[in-house]
Amino acid sequence: MQPVNLKNLVRDIPDFPKPGIVFKDIVPLLSNPTALRYIVDAMFVHYFGTRVDLVVSAEARGFILGPAVAYHLGAGFVPVRKPGKLPFKTKSVTYDLEYGKDTLTIHEDAIKPGDHVLLIDDLLATGGTMVASAKLVEGLGGVVIGCGFIIELDFLKGRERLAPYDVHSLIRYPD
Amino acid sequence: MQPVNLKNLVRDIPDFPKPGIVFKDIVPLLSNPTALRYIVDAMFVHYFGTRVDLVVSAEARGFILGPAVAYHLGAGFVPVRKPGKLPFKTKSVTYDLEYGKDTLTIHEDAIKPGDHVLLIDDLLATGGTMVASAKLVEGLGGVVIGCGFIIELDFLKGRERLAPYDVHSLIRYPD
Repeated sequence: MQPVNLKNLVRDIPDFPKPGIVFKDIVPLLSNPTALRYIVDAMFVHYFGTRVDLVVSAEARGFILGPAVAYHLGAGFVPVRKPGKLPFKTKSVTYDLEYGKDTLTIHEDAIKPGDHVLLIDDLLATGGTMVASAKLVEGLGGVVIGCGFIIELDFLKGRERLAPYDVHSLIRYPD
Repeated sequence: MQPVNLKNLVRDIPDFPKPGIVFKDIVPLLSNPTALRYIVDAMFVHYFGTRVDLVVSAEARGFILGPAVAYHLGAGFVPVRKPGKLPFKTKSVTYDLEYGKDTLTIHEDAIKPGDHVLLIDDLLATGGTMVASAKLVEGLGGVVIGCGFIIELDFLKGRERLAPYDVHSLIRYPD
């Protein structure tokens, strides 16, 4: 196995999706087989020994890691999607963005009361998407046991916004 | 392990996303841990022994299975996305839908000439998305070694449209 430096596989894209934002491009990371394996295994290792019934992730990039982690933990996977995408009856939550609002939805029968749920996403910035996902899960009676991310941007303080949930990230900026 | 009937975990949703279409809802399938494990393992087993450098899937539902299969095959994962979503320089392909057109994009450096690529998606209907993804891969010099799906709707003849690619599906309708 070749040595892999994870941060060398994350590409900074200036001014995307809008001026002033430096986007963390994880495609080079995901397309490296050793790095992909590390990401999945490291997430599994962190939650090993914890009861996880379901992993929940929001579209679209959350779908990349969530199901693979669910597989390893012996859990199921439940998608959170934008309005109009899920075909069955849904519950929704609307949350504030920097400009405007966004809404996320979940199937109303996807989580049973008491299910232990791990939330997974690719990147923790301000935490808005993850807080909304947690509200959806809790609204159905699920228990959020943690929030896992590939990348965390410490300076945006998403971790504080997600307190008191357990937050775990594999790559943090700045370090 | 409880016995699992995969088709019992696929829910028919009439008239979604529009009148006359019966949508195959795979959320009950994905949220069942045993079924999720079967889907990933069965896909791995089918391609075991085949050279696969990269798995490529289109957003959003393709992301659910593609990376987990890539992990098992020791491959990397490359996302295909709608315009404006990928941050680096992209190649795109536009294809016809029943009404109108759609466009998919891929990072221009995500595939190296000669890479062996497995295409994975959740559902094979008419095959339009998969043909477009194959064109993106081949446009970068990749070799498509197969197209894998959780569900195939035989009566829409996507398999014919995807010839001469190897097509593999885990659940076929009607059977």
